[in-house]
Amino acid sequence: MSSVPDSNKSLSPAKKPVARRSADQAAAVADPTRRRLLAGGLAAGAGAAVAALQARPAAAAGDPAITEIQDWNRYLGDGVDARPYGTPSQYEEHVVRRNVPWLTADPVSSVNFTPLHELDGIITPNGLCFERHHAGIADVDPAQHRLMIAGLVDKPLVFTMQDILRFPRENCVYFLECAANSGMEWRGAQLNGCQFTHGMVHCVVYTGVKLRYLLEEAGVKTNGKWLLAEGADASAMTRSIPMEKALDDCMVAFKMNGEALRPEQGYPLRLVVPGWEGNMWVKWLRRLEVGDMAWHHREETSKYTDLLGNGKARMFSLTMDAKSVITFPSGDMKLPGPGFYNISGLAWTGRGRVRKVEVSVDGGRSWYPAHIENTPEPMCTVRFSFPWRWDGTPAVLQSRCTDETGYIQPTREELIAIRGANGKFGSIYHLNAIQSWAVDSEGGVTNVHA
Amino acid sequence: MSSVPDSNKSLSPAKKPVARRSADQAAAVADPTRRRLLAGGLAAGAGAAVAALQARPAAAAGDPAITEIQDWNRYLGDGVDARPYGTPSQYEEHVVRRNVPWLTADPVSSVNFTPLHELDGIITPNGLCFERHHAGIADVDPAQHRLMIAGLVDKPLVFTMQDILRFPRENCVYFLECAANSGMEWRGAQLNGCQFTHGMVHCVVYTGVKLRYLLEEAGVKTNGKWLLAEGADASAMTRSIPMEKALDDCMVAFKMNGEALRPEQGYPLRLVVPGWEGNMWVKWLRRLEVGDMAWHHREETSKYTDLLGNGKARMFSLTMDAKSVITFPSGDMKLPGPGFYNISGLAWTGRGRVRKVEVSVDGGRSWYPAHIENTPEPMCTVRFSFPWRWDGTPAVLQSRCTDETGYIQPTREELIAIRGANGKFGSIYHLNAIQSWAVDSEGGVTNVHA
Repeated sequence: MSSVPDSNKSLSPAKKPVARRSADQAAAVADPTRRRLLAGGLAAGAGAAVAALQARPAAAAGDPAITEIQDWNRYLGDGVDARPYGTPSQYEEHVVRRNVPWLTADPVSSVNFTPLHELDGIITPNGLCFERHHAGIADVDPAQHRLMIAGLVDKPLVFTMQDILRFPRENCVYFLECAANSGMEWRGAQLNGCQFTHGMVHCVVYTGVKLRYLLEEAGVKTNGKWLLAEGADASAMTRSIPMEKALDDCMVAFKMNGEALRPEQGYPLRLVVPGWEGNMWVKWLRRLEVGDMAWHHREETSKYTDLLGNGKARMFSLTMDAKSVITFPSGDMKLPGPGFYNISGLAWTGRGRVRKVEVSVDGGRSWYPAHIENTPEPMCTVRFSFPWRWDGTPAVLQSRCTDETGYIQPTREELIAIRGANGKFGSIYHLNAIQSWAVDSEGGVTNVHA
Repeated sequence: MSSVPDSNKSLSPAKKPVARRSADQAAAVADPTRRRLLAGGLAAGAGAAVAALQARPAAAAGDPAITEIQDWNRYLGDGVDARPYGTPSQYEEHVVRRNVPWLTADPVSSVNFTPLHELDGIITPNGLCFERHHAGIADVDPAQHRLMIAGLVDKPLVFTMQDILRFPRENCVYFLECAANSGMEWRGAQLNGCQFTHGMVHCVVYTGVKLRYLLEEAGVKTNGKWLLAEGADASAMTRSIPMEKALDDCMVAFKMNGEALRPEQGYPLRLVVPGWEGNMWVKWLRRLEVGDMAWHHREETSKYTDLLGNGKARMFSLTMDAKSVITFPSGDMKLPGPGFYNISGLAWTGRGRVRKVEVSVDGGRSWYPAHIENTPEPMCTVRFSFPWRWDGTPAVLQSRCTDETGYIQPTREELIAIRGANGKFGSIYHLNAIQSWAVDSEGGVTNVHA
């Protein structure tokens, strides 16, 4: 910030009649010659208060008294009829989900990433929640959509969306993490930036009906121990879920962050499986079949199963382990210089609540407790922060999450010692290691394996 | 819901190779003749399980075995490169902010309304937060934007956005209500539907810096008792704020619901004045001037001041009183028939936390406690619900909020007895009366003054 000359402080701002801006006016104002003239005129007259408003850039140019009235103060803007459904500022066009074309053969069976580094708090805006599809986004008409419950039940049922909306509902905040999140870290730091290292996680408010209520309507038979959930997309995404989980905290959700689910998140109906890997949260949910054992479908055998170093499979590793990431500062950022910075990040666990988060600025040699900003809730992210005064020397920033079971987020080396370097077997799932961001003496931040 | 013939329950769903849908294919599938043929063919073959999935509409047509495979299961959908910033489903186009052209002379100085009846939980999605402008939406470049603090301070300052982002930040959830919300109810029920009666309120997570931190940097002089806040839009919206409030819980916010403020909500910087009337939450905030008394600007004298029945002005009624509204069922809805309904609504108060919400289904003769779904937080909405079995006879639904100060939301008659029928003096502000929705014997719901 910069100080303002004292003589300016009592002046009122220039207020003048405004007119709706025409294309001609916009072109005239955009002409830098005209703008400089305008600024010169103001400096000599009543525009001094406006000059003070703009003191910083003018001061940087060596002349604190001369500046411009900004366009946005000179012309009427768009009215309340312009955007019935709002969109971000044109200056925020860089804040988007990004995909990596070389990762997959086709964008209809691929992933994009949440821009975690641009967000704050714990709620992910709907337009920025990462996507993972296996056959593209099903464009489902809710009036035609049905949910069938069949198999080992007393009374098979078909629900319309209107049927489901009549049940008592609840609102719950849960994180959803793809089992492949951070998978590129198993063998090397292949992409910089936490959008790519950790952007396959989001956290939203779900509105829906307890899955238990629907299963109770159908009546699960005593030998019904597993539930098959199937989506209505072209991949008919199918996963097996233990009945104990289904009857515990699963939901059939129809809203996210207050409004209808987005098409890419399963509109009009998705399964919510709190704390468990994202692939199980079946989107465009159309069928629930009760059975007496797991189905061993493609998505739970050839995929989302972890091959270990000894060639054996770690199977049905469904719960997402405790994890955290510093989102500021993070890879691809540049600190402008030494001084105070507010380190900020996210932590979560699929095993209940986050108990604590620690931060290290020396690559894990010493750890300090971070401030947890929101009350930890089960299977919900927390935002943590840590005040840091950077002295301008190289540093390695890390965060470490401990959950309420006492589980401590491991280092990458600890994880590889137990599981093997999964990558060489082609399995890329369930990497929850501590992330390291190196800050160099110029302030540049990069993804390192410290 | 409808029951499924038992013979269908063990069949697997039809899974077949899918191909990316072409325009020709889409046209062919949209041809109803072809669709009926397809459905007939399926009925004779392996499509029976899919038929079961669609049992309900087929049953309604009298033929439970014949139905169609839906388009969304037959073709690949859009990939992860289709929408870097997501948008709602095409089937949700009715869920938008709406304005009322006859209310104001020009949409650049007007209001639109949040579709409360389509939302759940307490968080309003950014694209649906109501707008109120006095000179349209300022389209501000954050790199050029400045915030000046001047007046009765030790050291006048100008902040860039980068300066402000360096301060310690916080995330807080607050409701924002326009003082004119429900104003049309003073004299008559002029519009049906809670989008119009109560849609000038929203509730989002704000990320920002305590205003106190910025004022402390400048150093408020001991005679600095009021703060003038000014926006950078063409109206230079200007309001006076008591210093006590400014130093208490006010924020300078740059994010809402995790992402940058939307242009219509003051991008890149707005004032947050928890619990106080929305007009004070100055958008596109560019100037804070410290003074020793209120400025009595246009917006706090000719507007947002309540003329009483005796002709005197109720001035600086800044805090929004306790209020609530049932959002389901609400005006313009139609209940399909007698049976169970989950009454749902929102309640809030500018004086701290909501203590309780009560619901009446007989026009206020008897009241029952509603379930409050989220932990009440200061100046934050709560979602309440109440299970109701409608017997098919006419009913009048009401909700009543009590806040932690003991204040009880009044009836419209009680409010008019104290304040006069404001409408006849042209003042339309601060109506927080109990809202009544009449349900007729056909299930139709209308806005009434019960």
